[in-house]
Formats: sequence, structure tokens, C-alpha cells
Amino acid sequence: MLQNPASKYRPFVPVRLTDRTWPDATITKPPVWCSVDLRDGNQALIEPMDIERKIRMFEQLVKIGFKEIEVGFPSASQIEFDFMRKLIEEKRIPDDVTVQVLTQAREHLIRRTFEALEGVPRAIVHLYNATAPVMRRVVLGMSEDEIVELARSNAQLFKDIAADHPHTDWTFEYSPEMYSDTEVEFSKRVIDAVTDVWQPTPQKKCIINLPTTVEHSSPNIFADMVEWTHRHVNRRDSIVLSVHPHNDRGTGTATAEMALLAGADRLEGCLFGNGERTGNLDVVNVALNMYIQGINPGLDFSDIDGIRATVEYCNQLPVHPRHPYVGELVYTSFSGSHQDAIKKAFSARQEGDIWDMPYLPIDPKDLGRSYEAVIRVNSQSGKGGISYLLEAEFGLQLPRRLQIEFSQVVQREMDALGTEFTANHLWQIFRKEFGMDVAQAPQYRLAEENGEVTLNAKLHWDGQERVLEGKGTGPIDAFVQALSQSLDRSVRVMNYSEHAVGEGANAQAVAYVEVRVDDSHTVFGVGMDANIVSASIRAILSGVRRAPAVQAAAV
Amino acid sequence: MLQNPASKYRPFVPVRLTDRTWPDATITKPPVWCSVDLRDGNQALIEPMDIERKIRMFEQLVKIGFKEIEVGFPSASQIEFDFMRKLIEEKRIPDDVTVQVLTQAREHLIRRTFEALEGVPRAIVHLYNATAPVMRRVVLGMSEDEIVELARSNAQLFKDIAADHPHTDWTFEYSPEMYSDTEVEFSKRVIDAVTDVWQPTPQKKCIINLPTTVEHSSPNIFADMVEWTHRHVNRRDSIVLSVHPHNDRGTGTATAEMALLAGADRLEGCLFGNGERTGNLDVVNVALNMYIQGINPGLDFSDIDGIRATVEYCNQLPVHPRHPYVGELVYTSFSGSHQDAIKKAFSARQEGDIWDMPYLPIDPKDLGRSYEAVIRVNSQSGKGGISYLLEAEFGLQLPRRLQIEFSQVVQREMDALGTEFTANHLWQIFRKEFGMDVAQAPQYRLAEENGEVTLNAKLHWDGQERVLEGKGTGPIDAFVQALSQSLDRSVRVMNYSEHAVGEGANAQAVAYVEVRVDDSHTVFGVGMDANIVSASIRAILSGVRRAPAVQAAAV
Repeated sequence: MLQNPASKYRPFVPVRLTDRTWPDATITKPPVWCSVDLRDGNQALIEPMDIERKIRMFEQLVKIGFKEIEVGFPSASQIEFDFMRKLIEEKRIPDDVTVQVLTQAREHLIRRTFEALEGVPRAIVHLYNATAPVMRRVVLGMSEDEIVELARSNAQLFKDIAADHPHTDWTFEYSPEMYSDTEVEFSKRVIDAVTDVWQPTPQKKCIINLPTTVEHSSPNIFADMVEWTHRHVNRRDSIVLSVHPHNDRGTGTATAEMALLAGADRLEGCLFGNGERTGNLDVVNVALNMYIQGINPGLDFSDIDGIRATVEYCNQLPVHPRHPYVGELVYTSFSGSHQDAIKKAFSARQEGDIWDMPYLPIDPKDLGRSYEAVIRVNSQSGKGGISYLLEAEFGLQLPRRLQIEFSQVVQREMDALGTEFTANHLWQIFRKEFGMDVAQAPQYRLAEENGEVTLNAKLHWDGQERVLEGKGTGPIDAFVQALSQSLDRSVRVMNYSEHAVGEGANAQAVAYVEVRVDDSHTVFGVGMDANIVSASIRAILSGVRRAPAVQAAAV
Repeated sequence: MLQNPASKYRPFVPVRLTDRTWPDATITKPPVWCSVDLRDGNQALIEPMDIERKIRMFEQLVKIGFKEIEVGFPSASQIEFDFMRKLIEEKRIPDDVTVQVLTQAREHLIRRTFEALEGVPRAIVHLYNATAPVMRRVVLGMSEDEIVELARSNAQLFKDIAADHPHTDWTFEYSPEMYSDTEVEFSKRVIDAVTDVWQPTPQKKCIINLPTTVEHSSPNIFADMVEWTHRHVNRRDSIVLSVHPHNDRGTGTATAEMALLAGADRLEGCLFGNGERTGNLDVVNVALNMYIQGINPGLDFSDIDGIRATVEYCNQLPVHPRHPYVGELVYTSFSGSHQDAIKKAFSARQEGDIWDMPYLPIDPKDLGRSYEAVIRVNSQSGKGGISYLLEAEFGLQLPRRLQIEFSQVVQREMDALGTEFTANHLWQIFRKEFGMDVAQAPQYRLAEENGEVTLNAKLHWDGQERVLEGKGTGPIDAFVQALSQSLDRSVRVMNYSEHAVGEGANAQAVAYVEVRVDDSHTVFGVGMDANIVSASIRAILSGVRRAPAVQAAAV
């Protein structure tokens, strides 16, 4: 590829709409949504859907709330014809849903298409023919006039056949094929010729659909084209202006959004962007982009994982782990600083507040997902992730500085092992680090007199048994005093917290103490015991054991 | 989700730059590319890369042509520190490549970062701190003045430490974190404070990077923000203006492109858009979008499948089959009318013509790929489908690309015979196509020592017996090396999978390998044997036999 592409590829020629208004526009309401999963999406599958899968997809689309569903290209395949008949004959089409079918501009295909629709209460019949220069020149060998006449005469045929079937409520749709690669003036000419035949009215509109059959230009250039068309076509008030983006340049979503800013009323696309090559527009993506702007898209993705499962089953293709809004990793935070920020913002958030959460553009709960469920710990994650897991799984509420201290411990382990840790794994590291499995709870007696506590304890330490006695304002104070004396080391408690884990007979107390040893090291200790005094004593011992031994000569 | 989101989410407040110029701009040259695969991308992996994977990724990035590579966050993790040291001490950084490292604005992290860079000939040191309102208010609890001072003082620290290390050619980079969610006026204030310290000049610029840490607004709104910043920051002529898009709204590629129109000079992103949540900007996508506009992006993707294999290996995440330019399905045409148009356009095309191919925005050959027309016969879809039948009847689980390759073989047979195939018939075609009945399993011996495998084999090939010897990390690696040498052809394994068929004494292993032969043809091979090593060797030989023979004169 190191050869220069300049001699082989030419830049896309933009419309240069200098008085464009779309960059100042804002999306304030959802478009008319049309799913093409069963047609354009299905066509691009390695194994197209069988009837059972088609039914399942259709029912899923209805459940999400699509009111317009392109169900097939019945003249192109027997299975698509049969599926259309099945929907009609088994009365599977809800009253508020309109099915749509596609046909090429050829007489026998059009007749066969209407045959498939016999008896349907309402339907959108979608006509297309090629209009782009490369198609006119290379594929069809037709002049501009011939293309216009092709569109016009087949539009007339639509009108004539529909007139013979007055019991169906017909809507017509027309697509100049590869609108995105056609000169806007020529697209207008063909569109005007078609609407001249159909004579739509503001009460009985037709749909004019502008396909980005292959995405060749950036979304701003496409938006200029759509705004040009929006402003120049005849009978605009009698037209539902639709776009049908693809994703060859990876900019399908932006193309759809800018087309809406530029005047489009309707979007055609597929769930999670299935479709030929790089796929169709991902309608879920666009709808949820609206949702997080406070606009109700009118489509229900509150069970997004269930929808994903259906789509993966029907298409026999996976959804990528990083796919916007739905991928398995998109509510996962691996970065420690991200986790920390999210945790703080969750704590600060009040029920009913506007959603303003760092690193989470949407509340995962709105889609039936959770931030918590997918959190993973790896060597890049910090205190937030680790402490969350320990809290969620083992009920520990680690003090903030302990979180930091422990995250470094985990970090070292991870750097050594280079692997992901589960909550159980973390728990083992935690128990080991704080010496929680070493039987070190001393036997003790406590006596209180005049607000002063006396503690007597027996303790195993460094292989010998020690007998301690200390006095203080409470058991911790007394124990620390006794221990300092016995070990001849300075031990002070800087911070202390304790909480219960579990309930009833199995309840345990967990104590966290931050001890300063030898006036040189501040470390945490953790102790767990059914008895809160024993838990505290264990925690102090845990901390002292973790402090480095005294140096002969202090630095 | 059927509740209205209006009370929970608020619309993004745009800049409303009414005198914007970017919609009339055109991209005419590539930006400065910076890969952040080893930092931002790596951070978001379930299993972060170990050193071996990091090295492999770094070498791949160098080979593609990246001149700026962010290699890590050395103060955050020992492995990233060690990797930086390894690159420097083993002199692995080419003379025309500059490594980049990220650090938070905290003194001990900054000092540790410079420590990691000791002795590097040149480096970009990248400072960031939070500037967005939610971060100031909820996470940091800092005023605007305090944020400015945080940035200013740490910028000064950068300058001071760098001055102590004059043998390195330092470039400084600064990111106001969550630029995309920060008021443009405040971003400008912080940026100006930083450049006021750094005093960049047109000859010695600094980099100001604008991260879309979380994508909240549509690309046109972001472009307005970038154009505002481009026009308002001080010392613009001494700044390389960089953007760092993410993809939460699925519009990262468009955001990058519009930012370039709006005045950005540099893009940070990852190969195929890996990264936290929905990923970073996909730099391959943006680069190839330029390529098909006739602009040489300066990055070499002529072996895109090889690059994909490396990325999938390092990230341990798949690239989606519909991913722009690289997915397995993106050069596959399933639609009869599309295939017909492509066929006609190929016939009409003369060598040296401008590329104007319906449905194929790029010549797949430019990326080492090929166009595949999957002509589907109605009766051979669904439960009559080829891969369905082979799996149901013979237990084969064909990889997706192999399904495509084999369906073309079946299609040719069908065209010749004009008949529908049974499962048995397909199985015969399959065995014949992959040469599975040719007795070609060689005799071999394997020895392993210190993690290196040595393989000796005897093989019949083209009527003669060959004695092979090769070394590698495993039997496949060793055999491929031996075979390449013996045949004097380049053979590389791009993909490999193997599974058992049947159970107990009759169990067989079936191996599928995708081999790239002579750096020009990528084909599948299939092998079946009770022994998994023999099955793999058979599969490699099957693939190599299927690749076209070397031409006498290379083109």
C-alpha cells in the first residue's frame, strides 16, 4: 500500500452548500423508524434466516416498538414470498404495524410483489432503481432520460396495480439507488418524476428514501446533500424524507444524525448494524444517542441483552464486546482513576438527579445492565474496582487509605502473575496480606473501673508466649499500650473503623486499624472475629506484623 | 425504558459557533498519527499484554509506520515501567520513532515517569489533569483557580526535570481531561496557563491534546468546539493540536474527521478501535477513509489480515466480521444484483483506471484481501445450508471465512451440475477440495527443550521425498518454518482452529488453518487425523497445495 493512492482514487466531490443550516439544528424528536433486519440485514447473512428465525426476529422488532418493518424482497426468493404470506394469513401483523417490501423496477417482479401482499390490511411497497453514474454507464448502459422513464413507468405500474386492490391501505416508497453517489440534481429529477405520478398529499404522503448504498463521503458532506434535496424536491410537504445509511467508512451513525439535522424524517436500519459488508445503520445506536439527550426514541431497549441474544441467534453473527450500548465490555471500567471517579459520583448522586456520571454516558440500569456486574480487576485497575468486589462479594467496606494500600498489593501480585483476578482471588490475597488466617487472637480479660480499662492478655508472638497488661480508655487503647510495652516498640492507633459482616449467628465483626509503628511506618491491619474486641485486637496485631521490623539504626 | 428520559438526561449544550468554517474545509493531508494501543488500549483489556505481547505490538506499530507511539503509563504499573526500560536499554526504538508516556499531574508520579525515560534519545511526556465540571465538583472538589494552578505547577515541574536531562530531546504534551465535557473557555484558560510555562515556539512546538474522554455530543458539535479552541488558544503557531476521540456514541471516526476539518493536526487512537468501553478512535478506519480519497495516509495496511492477527493476539479480543476495511465479511457480496454490478464493472475496468467500483469502496487487493461473491442458491440456505449440513451430518464447525471460501467452491460445482446437493455430496466436494483423501501425513519426530520445539519430518511432495527440519515455539510453528525452507516459499499461519469429531476410539481431530502463501494468497487448509499434531500438519499441507503455484516471474 506504500504506493500513493492519488492515481487510483479520487476525492468525493462535495455539494458545497454554503448556506447550509443543519450545523445549527438540533434533534428534538425521534424520526420514523423502519427496521430492515429481515430484508437488507438478512440478505447479508452467511446463513439467511429460516422461517422460524424470521418469525422470532419479526416478533422482537414488534416488541421493541417498530411500526414499520421491511420484511423482505418477496419477488426475489420463495422463502421471502412464503414468509410474507404466513404473516398475512396467520394474522401476525399487529394493527399498529405496517409491513414493507422491496422490489426492483421490473414489471414481473412488481406484479409478483403485489401478489405476495394480497389481503394485507396495510403495506409500504418500496420501489428502487439505479441512478448513480457508475450504474447508468457501466451496469445498465442507460441515459439519464431512460432512467427517469424507467422510474416513472414503474411508479405508474405501482399506482395501477394498487388501484386494483383498494382494500389495502397502500403507502409507496421510492429509492434512487446509490443516492449518495448520484448528482443531487439528477436525484431530484427522478424523485420529482416519481412523485408526479404518485401525486402524494400532506394527508397521504409517500416516502422518498435516500440510500447511502455505499458510504463514500463524510457525514457532513452527506448532510449537505440531504439538505439540498430537502430544500429542492417538489411536493416536500407530501413526502416523508427517509435515509438508509450504510457504514463502509465507519460513520453510519453520524451520517444518520446529520441527515436528521438536515431535514430527514425517517431512518432505515438494522439492530446493532447488521447488513451487507460493514452493515446498515445501527438503529439501536442512534435511538440510544437520542435517549441520553433526554429524547424518548419510542423504541424500548430496556432488555438490551435479551434483544442481543435474539439478534445473535437470528443472524448467527456475534455482537462485538465493544459495540456501543450493548457490548459486554461497554459498562466495564478497567481504569483505577475511572473507577474511583464513578464511585464518588455514585455516592454524590441523589435519586432523581440528572444523570451526570463520569465515564458512564448512560445509566446501565436503563438497559437492564449494570456497571457492577461487569467490573473486572486487572493490573490497571485501582482501588475502586477492587474494593467494589470485596464489598459486593464479602461485605467489606474498606477505608479509603486502606483501598489505596491494598490496591498496591494487588498490583504487585498482578504484575507477577499477569492475569485477571476474580473476587475470590482478591479475597485470598486480602486474607493473606493481612494475616487473617494466622490464629493470633489472644486470650484476654477486661476490667473497667472509674472509666479506666485494664486489659490482661496472653499472646503468641514470634514463637514465644507473652503475658501483657495494659491500661487505657478502652480495650484498644489498653491493648496498644500493653503491646508497645511488651514489644518495646512504639505503636499508635491513627484510625479505626469496624463494621458487621453477615447477620445472626454467623455475623462477624471486621475491624480496620491504621497503626503507626516505631513512629516511622503507618500501615493498616485488618481483623475479623465474632467478638468485636477480638476483631480489633487481631487488626492491631495484623498491622504491627505488616510493619517492617525495627532497624538497628534508624535512618 | 419506556419511561421518558427527559427528567434524567439533559441535552448536550453546544458551542453554537455560527461563523464556523469547518463544513467547507477538506482534508488534503494526513495528520500526525499517534498510536495509544500500548497505553489506553492495553488498559482496557481483560488480560493486559505481557511483555512478549507488548513487544509484538510495538514492532507491529513501527512496521505500519507510526512515528509517535504512546507505550504506557510507567508510574502506574511496574510492568509498564519495565517495558519502557526494556525498549530503551535494548535500543528497540527506531531513530524515526518517538515514544510517548502518560502521567497524572502528581509530583511523585511525574518523577517516576521521568525515571522510566532515563537515557531515551527522544520522548513525548504527556501530562493530564481533570478539568470537566463533574470532575472538579464531585471527584476532586477543586475550584477553577485550583485546577489552573495544578496544571501550571506540574507543567513547571516537567520543565524543571527535563532541564536536568538535556541529553534527551523532550516534547511536552498536555491534555485537559474530558475536554469534550469542559467549557471551551475554561479549557483555553488551562491550556494557556500550561503553554505560558512551557513557552513553545514554532520551531519547538508542544502538543495540546483534546480528549473526548467520553463521547457525549455529535461530531458536528465537537467540531465547533475544536474550531473554537483552534481559533482562541494563545501561541497556536507553536502548538500541535491533537485530538483523542472515544466512541461511546458510535461516532468516533466522524469526530476525528471533523476535528481535522476544524483545525486539529494530530490524532491519537488504536488499531481497529480497541480501548476502554466502546473503544478509542479506530486509526485504521480514518487512515483508510483518507486513502480512498486519494490521500496517502503514510501508514501501511497492505497486509491488513496480518495486522489483524497480531492485534487479536495481543488484545485477546476479536475484530468484528463487519468491522470497516478489515472484517471477514466486508469484501463479500451476497446480493445477486450487487454481484452482477461488480462483475460488469470489473469487466469494464482498465488497468490504471480510477477505482469506481459499485459496492466496493476500496480495491481489496490494496489491503491484501480479495473480493468474494457468495452466490446463494435458495435451496441451499437455512437448514439446507452448506455449513449447517456439514455440521449436522459430519460434526464440522467451519470457521466463518472458510464457510465463505467453501461456498464458492460449491457454487462452481452447482453451476456445472445444476443440481441441489445432499449432505453426502457436499462432504465429498469438501474432502476433494481440501485434498483430505491424499495420504499426505508425514512421519515426524518432535523434541522440546527450554520451550523450543524441534521437528523433523519426512514428506512426499510433488513426487519426491523431502526431509524437513524446523524449530519454533510449537509443532505448527516448527513445521511451517521447515516447510517454508524446504519449498523455498513463504508460508505463514494466519489463523488456526481445531476440534474433535466423534468420541472414544473413533474420535478424530479436525484442524482448520488459514495460511498465507508467498505473501500473496490466503487460503484455508483442512486436515483430519486421530493425532492432533498430524491433523494440523495435514491442514497446513492442504492449504499450501491449494495456493496457486509461484509464477516464474514475479509481478
